[in-house]
Amino acid sequence: MPVNDLYRDYRLSWFGQPGESSDVVLMSRVRLSRNFARLPFPNRADMKQLAAVQSMASSVFSDIETAAGQEFDAVGLDGLTELERRVLEEKDLISESMLESTQYRSAYISADRRVSILVNEEDHLRIQCMAPGLDLTTPFETASRIDDAIEAKLDMAFDERMGYLTSGPTNLGTGLRAEVFMHLPGLAYTRNMNSVASTAQQLGILVQGIGSKDNETPGSFFAAMNQMTLGYTEASILENLAGAVKEIIAHERRARKALLLYSKDRLEDAVWRAYGILRYARSLDEKEIVELVSKVRLGIDLGLLDELPPEACADLLLASRSEYIKNLSGSENLSPPEIDRQRAAMVRRVLADHGREGIT
Amino acid sequence: MPVNDLYRDYRLSWFGQPGESSDVVLMSRVRLSRNFARLPFPNRADMKQLAAVQSMASSVFSDIETAAGQEFDAVGLDGLTELERRVLEEKDLISESMLESTQYRSAYISADRRVSILVNEEDHLRIQCMAPGLDLTTPFETASRIDDAIEAKLDMAFDERMGYLTSGPTNLGTGLRAEVFMHLPGLAYTRNMNSVASTAQQLGILVQGIGSKDNETPGSFFAAMNQMTLGYTEASILENLAGAVKEIIAHERRARKALLLYSKDRLEDAVWRAYGILRYARSLDEKEIVELVSKVRLGIDLGLLDELPPEACADLLLASRSEYIKNLSGSENLSPPEIDRQRAAMVRRVLADHGREGIT
Repeated sequence: MPVNDLYRDYRLSWFGQPGESSDVVLMSRVRLSRNFARLPFPNRADMKQLAAVQSMASSVFSDIETAAGQEFDAVGLDGLTELERRVLEEKDLISESMLESTQYRSAYISADRRVSILVNEEDHLRIQCMAPGLDLTTPFETASRIDDAIEAKLDMAFDERMGYLTSGPTNLGTGLRAEVFMHLPGLAYTRNMNSVASTAQQLGILVQGIGSKDNETPGSFFAAMNQMTLGYTEASILENLAGAVKEIIAHERRARKALLLYSKDRLEDAVWRAYGILRYARSLDEKEIVELVSKVRLGIDLGLLDELPPEACADLLLASRSEYIKNLSGSENLSPPEIDRQRAAMVRRVLADHGREGIT
Repeated sequence: MPVNDLYRDYRLSWFGQPGESSDVVLMSRVRLSRNFARLPFPNRADMKQLAAVQSMASSVFSDIETAAGQEFDAVGLDGLTELERRVLEEKDLISESMLESTQYRSAYISADRRVSILVNEEDHLRIQCMAPGLDLTTPFETASRIDDAIEAKLDMAFDERMGYLTSGPTNLGTGLRAEVFMHLPGLAYTRNMNSVASTAQQLGILVQGIGSKDNETPGSFFAAMNQMTLGYTEASILENLAGAVKEIIAHERRARKALLLYSKDRLEDAVWRAYGILRYARSLDEKEIVELVSKVRLGIDLGLLDELPPEACADLLLASRSEYIKNLSGSENLSPPEIDRQRAAMVRRVLADHGREGIT
């Protein structure tokens, strides 16, 4: 079953791979929240009702495959180990809430892994579609085709005035959530993130740091997403987000040029030191890796470092995640220092793989 | 003239090369201070008297060559550029006081560079002999042979009760100063340097950090030297120092074993990170290099890092000195950031040279 590779492979075709403005944008994601009519939302449903939702979803499985034009794996979450669930969650293919509640929960994952349909998450169905670079159109069209195929067979909870009914009020209406993941070291280093985020806010776009506990954003990775789902058409929501992201991309590129102009030497030194540490450290924690990879990627994008292709950076981020490493090692109980050691070894392996590619 | 290579080569056969206990000891040095009879010490001499000293030294030049069994270069310090003098001083072949006062000052440097005789430094003659590893015997014997050859022709200032008369009181008597340069990261990391230094003090041995401003000792390099020159025979001075050094070596090796036992993972990570930064940094200051090289050398000695021979570390230290780099670049007025950039480039060159040696 191809989905089994997910636990051993790290690469994801939609993350950090070449695409439009992929010097700044790592991926785009569109999610549609849908609920079947006449059944309570999952958080209020009993086991029988959850089972009913799952069997309704099953009944349109082949329609989904036809609409998406590819095969899917139906992954029942209670058939997975906890570690396997955590790996899927790290890869954003299932959500955090599905780590604990597993009964009658499943994920339909497409062969190219760009589509993941969650059954009995917060809503009965969440149709997630991903693409590399800045591309909201492809994922939205795929999600819509899948939605249409399902709605051709099954009734959805829909109100003429409100639109699609959802478990959380923030998804009400279109049920559409679109997100763009960006690498913004230029804006972060030049301390322009706050003004960019507050300008975006005025356009109804939320910009927030990824992986940021205690208000740090290791590696300057940010996500921009729509805040409104009600009272706008899907097209205007996507257009509004794409427009804001294009503004941010332009700001980011200007900030990078300014950095290159005013601090090239310091930047070059920082970029190569980060590369040296990635290549040789024997212990790396998850946060440090993100910071090092961010610097290396900026160096590649600015033409300061040429020993790696840009895609290697995404591979480094994905291959160095803790749950992935624990699952590979076959041990749930790896100590944090041992994870950090295996993570550093994994980083060297990924770099060596890219090194070989570079030589041949 | 072979001495000209000194300004362009960095390697010194007596520094950090293989020898007895060279896992801890980088070099041994013996210095004899001598003054000609009936002429004032250099700091009280007029130009005519300095000239007289120089011509007396000249008159025994070929006797010195015969005694040392090799050719010498007679380097007149006022024939050198200031940068060239600074390079010689960095290599410990002339002393700091000879940077400014150059008239009638010269250095006789042997072909293997293990002997440097300073004329009109603090004393009329300072005969310095160096050897790699812990070896006070060879340099002392060479210095004594040279001293005997000079004294066979010329009268020295000598008092039956006091011994040899010298410009400074600390050299009075035997005129013998012996020094051993050591790398003591084990004792430094385990915070045992203070107790080692104070035990040595009780034996009349001064142990002090090298390159330590503000009480730091970058890279944990220390020198041990005799404090007494009067009232002891040369043999007992050397024996006392060698005995103390052997004690320190034993302590250092025990400390390294303890580090390996209790902090191997942390140490291994620190060692490889230092190596990664040396290989890839684009800017390195003199102090950081010393710290990085110290870690790498410890890693080599403990068998944690195998990409370099131990001698490479000495090369890195010598090749990355500021005056040497300035002189190579041909410019007195290199800015500090530019020196740091060229230093990082030089480090990469030295590592690449050793890499090639490793491959062939």
